[in-house]
Formats: sequence, structure tokens, C-alpha cells
Amino acid sequence: MRVAVLGTGLIGTSVALALRERGVGVWLADEDPEAARLAANLGAGEPLPDSALRVHADVAVIAVPPAAVAATLAAAQARTLARCYTDVASVKQLPVAQARARGCDMTSYVPGHPLAGREKHGPAAARADLFLGRTWALCPAPETSEQALAAVTALVRECGAVPMRTDAAAHDRWVALVSHAPHLVAAAMAARLEAAPSEALDLAGQGLRDVTRIAAGDTGLWTQILAANAEPVARVLAAVAADLAEAARMLTDGDPKSVATLLDHGQVGVARIPGKHGGEPREFTAVQVVIRDEPGELARLFDAAGAADVNIEDVRIEHSPGLPVGVAELSVRPAEAGTLLDALEAGGWPVRR
Amino acid sequence: MRVAVLGTGLIGTSVALALRERGVGVWLADEDPEAARLAANLGAGEPLPDSALRVHADVAVIAVPPAAVAATLAAAQARTLARCYTDVASVKQLPVAQARARGCDMTSYVPGHPLAGREKHGPAAARADLFLGRTWALCPAPETSEQALAAVTALVRECGAVPMRTDAAAHDRWVALVSHAPHLVAAAMAARLEAAPSEALDLAGQGLRDVTRIAAGDTGLWTQILAANAEPVARVLAAVAADLAEAARMLTDGDPKSVATLLDHGQVGVARIPGKHGGEPREFTAVQVVIRDEPGELARLFDAAGAADVNIEDVRIEHSPGLPVGVAELSVRPAEAGTLLDALEAGGWPVRR
Repeated sequence: MRVAVLGTGLIGTSVALALRERGVGVWLADEDPEAARLAANLGAGEPLPDSALRVHADVAVIAVPPAAVAATLAAAQARTLARCYTDVASVKQLPVAQARARGCDMTSYVPGHPLAGREKHGPAAARADLFLGRTWALCPAPETSEQALAAVTALVRECGAVPMRTDAAAHDRWVALVSHAPHLVAAAMAARLEAAPSEALDLAGQGLRDVTRIAAGDTGLWTQILAANAEPVARVLAAVAADLAEAARMLTDGDPKSVATLLDHGQVGVARIPGKHGGEPREFTAVQVVIRDEPGELARLFDAAGAADVNIEDVRIEHSPGLPVGVAELSVRPAEAGTLLDALEAGGWPVRR
Repeated sequence: MRVAVLGTGLIGTSVALALRERGVGVWLADEDPEAARLAANLGAGEPLPDSALRVHADVAVIAVPPAAVAATLAAAQARTLARCYTDVASVKQLPVAQARARGCDMTSYVPGHPLAGREKHGPAAARADLFLGRTWALCPAPETSEQALAAVTALVRECGAVPMRTDAAAHDRWVALVSHAPHLVAAAMAARLEAAPSEALDLAGQGLRDVTRIAAGDTGLWTQILAANAEPVARVLAAVAADLAEAARMLTDGDPKSVATLLDHGQVGVARIPGKHGGEPREFTAVQVVIRDEPGELARLFDAAGAADVNIEDVRIEHSPGLPVGVAELSVRPAEAGTLLDALEAGGWPVRR
């Protein structure tokens, strides 16, 4: 397989790096030659030859902002750059409509959207593992050929992602709910912190950090995404705003019943989100161990786990400023928790059963 | 030191466990004898003797919901249970006003609030390390004696937390902003997921998980907290609701400029939150390593880091379902990143520079 990546920002460069790791040949291009050069230096591929040269890729991945997809697709098709084309924009109806309006060949175009990202942007933030285990939506148009869909599906699998086929309108409605509206909700909450006294921020806990984390994203790109999916996003935001305004009124009126109702609905909603490993939530048991904050301590801990043949699925470490200890929380399959606890205790670590 | 913990839910039992680990004697009591028994079985202490017996603690920690603090304080003072008293409620003006109205002795009472919690509740969810490195607000009343403040400050330090002195009104205004309002904002976003098609939820990424995580908290307790801090919370919520309603209107009107402004304010706000280690944000460099998903692999990785004398401050592991590899992201001080990369590369791990 030979792939052309058009647009070497975070997503394009990550696609290229993922494909390079699988031995796929990648050509790179970007409006900004600096960005393309940086991506090449990161090992993401080699520069796309000039359009005067006739080169042919199997797939061209168009990794540009939503409003630029159709023009990039048209230009690539004009030079018959690839057998088929896909894009990675967070909205799907806009680029599809614009591509059709421009007279692009729709049979070779498979609109796509990998559900992966970071707060950082640009090629330097790219990661070959960005798509591992993530859902990657594919929204073929009625004209899209089976061959094009098969080729792009294979590319998605090469990146380690899980392809999910849907249609553009449903896709846009769904991401409005699970991605675009949450982004603005996080921003609206984070915006309240701008003028807060710093003593207030000293009281911030993990909850506030989590609620506001994604608000650190790229304003220009997100404004374009939100504008391109305006109606479905506005519907979700209006509903959230109405619930919050109602909660504020009820609190002021001293009637917290509707607040309790909103909290109850929130509990039901959050329980519906699948776990981080995708699919059904997978249950792990967390084993907590107090560790010294010094080089080698974690190595000894993982040695003990490895010797007991226990696979650690995830680790969180909490340090306390000024204290010589921290706490490691090790996630393991429930059946293995007992073995791990025994092994750690035998190794002299204070564990909690 | 001898401490009585009145209320063996998540916070009370965690306080008791933290103190027991430091060798402090702890008495436990709860309205629900089952909860107190469970806490005792977890090693959190021994049952508080009957009020007919005259026993004396140095500090009594009142770990009951906000509206029950004053009555519990009055009853404890009536039996002269302790030399001084503190509580852990998330609001401070309400219990202080109610305690004063009941004629409680305010000289021995130090209103307090540890900024720590979990989505789970009850004694079984308690953790001795819950307060490690966390801020613990202390809001002495004008009448509070220096001796009482010193004793409670010492208890906070025994729990591994960082005491922060403030006054009750400022405390309530600040936690409205950094804790109570974010809770309802998360709930309002999560509530939109209740009726969503499950295909939409299959598109959920880490962003949605983070924004909504705290919405899984205990409705009864949170309703009481929000009602007790109604006015400052309502002010923040009304402002967030207004910003979101305005964003929805502007999106519908096809004018995304004010949306960009909100995103910009959100970026500034989120950058003001101190890092997880407390105090000024501490910058770490993330080193990414591809690892095999098998027992012992992490041990070998940490061995290599330990042998190079590099202290790993945090670890994140991402697995991909069905793939035999994962990615470990190791956070280290920037000055140590080069040493770690060299050591890992020498050990045969594929690293990204």
C-alpha cells in the first residue's frame, strides 16, 4: 500500500506515523512547507512529488480543516493522485455537500472521521499510537464504490482503529452530542475561571481539571468545526443551557428538587458511556500500594507483579508535594488482584485489601 | 492523639484509615450501625463507647452531610466528647450559622473541608491515601481558639493533606466556582446522553468521559451541598447557562465569532488551574514507549529507568483491544528525558524523540 497524506497537522502526521510503523509507504504534503518538512523529519514519510510528476497512491488521506476538504479533494482528483480518497474532518455533511457541489468524483471518496485527538496540535504533537483502539467513523455516500470503502477500511485497520460505518447526517448529530457540545460546555465552565481569585483555584481538585481539560484545544479549528455542525450542536447546547438556567433559578428560589432530578439524569447518562477499552465497559480491580518517591521503586513494584505473572492494565501515580511517598494504583483483572496483593505484600509493600 | 470520627461514610472512614496508618487511636460512630461496623472491619478503628461512658478524644471529626453537622456537634459537645471539633462538609457558612444558632461552643470548633472525594461513596470506598497532597480548607470562626486550630491543623497534616486557612464566606464562594458548579455542569451535559442512541455513545472519546465523570456522584449528598451553597452556585451556573445559550444562538444565526471568543476565554481559564502536584503547575516531559501487553514488560521498562537513575513522576498506559502492544507514557522532569530516552533505546524499546 502507498498512501498520500495531504495536511500534516496532528491527525495527518499521526496517520502517517501509524502507517510508517506498519511498513506502508507515505507521501506527505501541506500548504505550509515547514509543517510537511517537520513531519518528514519525524519519520512520517517523504515529500509528495510535484504535481507535474504523475505519481499514484492507493489512498489519499485529506487531513485539513473541514471547510478545506472539498477543495483539497478536487485538486487531488484533478491530478489523479490516488485510486481513492478519504478525509478526517470532525463533521461530514459539509465536506460531502461541498465535494458534490464542486463536481468531485464521489465514487472514489469515503468520508471519514477518527475519534481521536489531543489538546495539542501540529505535527510535533503527532503520535503513531493516536488511533489505537479508537473508533473511526466511515460515512460512504450513496455513490461511494465498494472498492474505495474496502481500501479505506483497510487503512483504518492499519492505523489500529476500529472502523464504524454510518451515514453523514447521523454522524454529525452524534458527534454534536458526544464531542462538539461537550467541548463548548467545558469552555464555558473554564471561562468562569479567567477572573477567579488565585485562592479559589488553589481549591481546585481533579473534578474541575477533568471537566475543563478539553477546553485547552485549538480555537481556530474548533470554531470551524462548531460552525460546520451548528444546528445539532446548538440544539444540545440550548438544552444544557436551559437545564443549567433552571437549576440556577431553583437554587435561588430554595427549591432544590429539580436540581436533584438533573443530578439523577446525569448519573443515568454518564453510566451509558462505554469504557475506555471500547465496547462494553471492562471492569478492572484497582490495587493501591504506597511507594517511595524515588528512582527504582516502581521497577521493584512491577518486577514483583511480573514475577507473579500478573498483567498490569493501567497505572495511576499520586505524589504528595513535600512527602517522601506516593500511591500507585494498579488496575488488574479482578481474578488477578489477590495474586498481586499477595506478591506485593510478600515484597514488603503496604497494600490495602 | 485520640480521635473520634462521627460519620463513617467515604470521608470519615478515609480520615480514620489515614490516622490509623499513622498510629492514631480512632473511635468510630455512625447513625447507621452497619456503616460503623463495616468501617471498623476495614481497620478504621474501634466503636465509640456508649455516651453513658465518659470518654475523651483530642479531636472529634464530624463527617456527616452539611445540614446534620450542627446537631452532631451539639450532641458531641453535650457529652464533652473531645477537646476540639472539626467537620468536613463541602459548605462552611451553613454549619457555622446553625452551630451558632444552637448555642454550640464555638471556641472549640474549627470548620473544615478536605478537597478530596471520589465518585463512589460509603465506607467500602474509603482510602487511607484520599487526602495525600490535597488542600484541606480550615475556616476558623472569630471565636475559634488557637489551641483548637493548632490541634485540627495537626490532624490535617497527619492525613497527608495541606491545610489552607480561609474564611467561611470566601470558601463557599470559591468552591461554588471550582467544585459545586462544575458538578452540575457535568451533570447537565451527562443528562443529554440519557436518551442518546447507543451508536452515538460508541463515538464517545476521552473528552466526553472527562467532562462527565463527576456526574456519577451521590445525588442526595450533592443536592444538599448545592442547596446549602445555593446563591454562589446559582450565580456561576447562570453565567455558564447564559454563555451556552448565547453560543447556541450565534451558531444558529451563522455567526461563530462569539463562539470563538468563548473558546478563547475557556483556554485562558483552564490554563489558570494549578497542576495535579499542587502549587504552581509543574512541567513534566512525556516520553512515549511502545510496550508489549504482557506480564513483566513494565517491570523491565521501569528497571531500565531506575538503572538510569531517572524518577518517573507519572505513568499512563493505553492498550488497544486485540493488539499485542500498548503505549506507556512516562512523565519525567524535562532534564531527565534525554537520559531516559537513551536508556530505553539501549534496552531495545522503540521510543519517539
